[in-house]
Amino acid sequence: METENPIPDEESKPNYTPVGKLGEFGLIKKLTEKIILKQLSTIKGVGDDAAVIEPEENQVILFSTDMLAEGVHFDLTYTPLRHLGYKAVAVNVSDICAMNGIPTQITVSIGVSNQFSVEAMEELYKGMRYACEEYGVDLVGGDTTSSHSGMIINIAIIGKCKKEEVAYRNTAKEGDIICVSGDLGGACAGLLILGRGKKMFADDPEAKPDLTGYDYVLKRQLMPQARVDIVALFKEHSIIPTAMIDISDGLSSEVNHLCEDGRIGAVIDEERIPINDATKKVASEFKQEAMAYALSGGEDYELLFTLSPKDFEKLKNSDQIKRIGEITSPAQGVSLRDKAGTLHPLSAKGWDGLKGEK
Amino acid sequence: METENPIPDEESKPNYTPVGKLGEFGLIKKLTEKIILKQLSTIKGVGDDAAVIEPEENQVILFSTDMLAEGVHFDLTYTPLRHLGYKAVAVNVSDICAMNGIPTQITVSIGVSNQFSVEAMEELYKGMRYACEEYGVDLVGGDTTSSHSGMIINIAIIGKCKKEEVAYRNTAKEGDIICVSGDLGGACAGLLILGRGKKMFADDPEAKPDLTGYDYVLKRQLMPQARVDIVALFKEHSIIPTAMIDISDGLSSEVNHLCEDGRIGAVIDEERIPINDATKKVASEFKQEAMAYALSGGEDYELLFTLSPKDFEKLKNSDQIKRIGEITSPAQGVSLRDKAGTLHPLSAKGWDGLKGEK
Repeated sequence: METENPIPDEESKPNYTPVGKLGEFGLIKKLTEKIILKQLSTIKGVGDDAAVIEPEENQVILFSTDMLAEGVHFDLTYTPLRHLGYKAVAVNVSDICAMNGIPTQITVSIGVSNQFSVEAMEELYKGMRYACEEYGVDLVGGDTTSSHSGMIINIAIIGKCKKEEVAYRNTAKEGDIICVSGDLGGACAGLLILGRGKKMFADDPEAKPDLTGYDYVLKRQLMPQARVDIVALFKEHSIIPTAMIDISDGLSSEVNHLCEDGRIGAVIDEERIPINDATKKVASEFKQEAMAYALSGGEDYELLFTLSPKDFEKLKNSDQIKRIGEITSPAQGVSLRDKAGTLHPLSAKGWDGLKGEK
Repeated sequence: METENPIPDEESKPNYTPVGKLGEFGLIKKLTEKIILKQLSTIKGVGDDAAVIEPEENQVILFSTDMLAEGVHFDLTYTPLRHLGYKAVAVNVSDICAMNGIPTQITVSIGVSNQFSVEAMEELYKGMRYACEEYGVDLVGGDTTSSHSGMIINIAIIGKCKKEEVAYRNTAKEGDIICVSGDLGGACAGLLILGRGKKMFADDPEAKPDLTGYDYVLKRQLMPQARVDIVALFKEHSIIPTAMIDISDGLSSEVNHLCEDGRIGAVIDEERIPINDATKKVASEFKQEAMAYALSGGEDYELLFTLSPKDFEKLKNSDQIKRIGEITSPAQGVSLRDKAGTLHPLSAKGWDGLKGEK
């Protein structure tokens, strides 16, 4: 199965060396020797008991972590390791973006079988380094351990932000405009295409699933972008979102998080939810509704945020930001308004009308 | 098998609830509702995309992570979950101590089978909370995921330190005094006792391994203490170690790290290496040398550090610190001086005379 590989090869690596042969220190050395530090605040990166980071004055440190487990978050039968490394970093960067912060440093912990090859580990790190470069993040430490099971990747991340600019998820107010970056549902569509390819291959190992034409949704699944550009856009316009969260579990779940299960209400306009044509094409092939992917699919790592009407005016012409609804009083609950104007309750699991479709 | 349990029960939990029944959000809520934040710098802990930490002025942030995998770092057949939780935190705190820093916040990621019980997870968290309280650390975030394999625990930690007080591992100078806190080899002895008990139980499930009299070594293995007291002692005496590292892999390996594989040399006096009588008793039962446990056993989480002769004078009467050797010129290499005064090369794997014993 071939997918476009946007992370360039640095050199060819035809050999196979079991991780066990190098030993832990050898492996760490091999994996970290190509890391380049960029942050002025990084006083000490990999190579000591802890990384040393000097924050700037009046800045807060943002600190988060995400674990990815084989068989749960990724399937190595169709996930190129380089993409996996990229995604592991991007989903952590996305957490910092969701606080309106700037990512600065990560640590990487990997649990992997002794039989896993060094070359495969290097592929994984290549993707991580590529992401670190793209997002301006320093990889400053970590841990590698053998695991008797599948691969586990844990990344912890630190970011910075001015204290008064931090965007929490539970601070939206009635009357705020609800916006989303990019488009939704693509990552879910990509996963369905990859799953179909895997099944075809399982049924007939000679089959070569044709992934042509699915580039967009595959990239959304395999190499999601953390929206550092949206955070930069806010700063450029001196805007602080009144609330923000990243979309890892699907729009329905995240809107309910914003409303903190009842503290405030929200109305989302179905027609305004941005869905790419490529995503709609996949939904049509699978005889499903693309809206279900957007509401419940997850893994898009777009930003869901609220703005005061005044701040929204400053950004309304951006093609990367779509207004999708408003924050209402708690009495109105959380709902989806369809094309006819009818309101449907929107639970954390998705529009009730779509239940069981995903 | 019963071991003394120093972490008190808060309430009895006779029920069994599969993790899957609660769901991710329910589980996180259940696991985090008892967390108490203590650090003034913690602006926001669990419950948002990232923790928000406001460092003090002129302070650096120390940032580290450690992963513990079932079957590699712990064996659930004889490790009480509360101890495991405690140890997972302590080994991370130890990394911050090894930088001469003060631990402040942690994030916890856990990968666990869906079939693992909520009660067992709570036991694990109970141990983590107990350690957090003891070390004054805030648990500020994390991730819980299902894992198709054994349990994986990853903790990331942040600590603080004045910039000029950070102790790196590669900054010792010729003439410095090499010291160690506490005593060594106990954690290895404890592991042997637990392993013997497991084997007895496997051979005869009716057998009840008698662990009486092994309290000291069992505690060293199951509930190692991070030496925050030693860092406090340094501050009390206005001492900055010229270099420091924690002993996770055994004294031999760590001394070689201090010497950075040849940048400087070191002589360790065998007779000065502190070993507890309880550790010697176990070695004698197993017809092994306790010195091998100290040199190659690991997991003691004591601090190995170097002091200028002048600073050493200030601490020489402390019963928690032992002078065990000196930093020499690189030409002399890294060696162990036996009782007769003979020098033996000390490789990272341990005294050559002990090879194969462990």
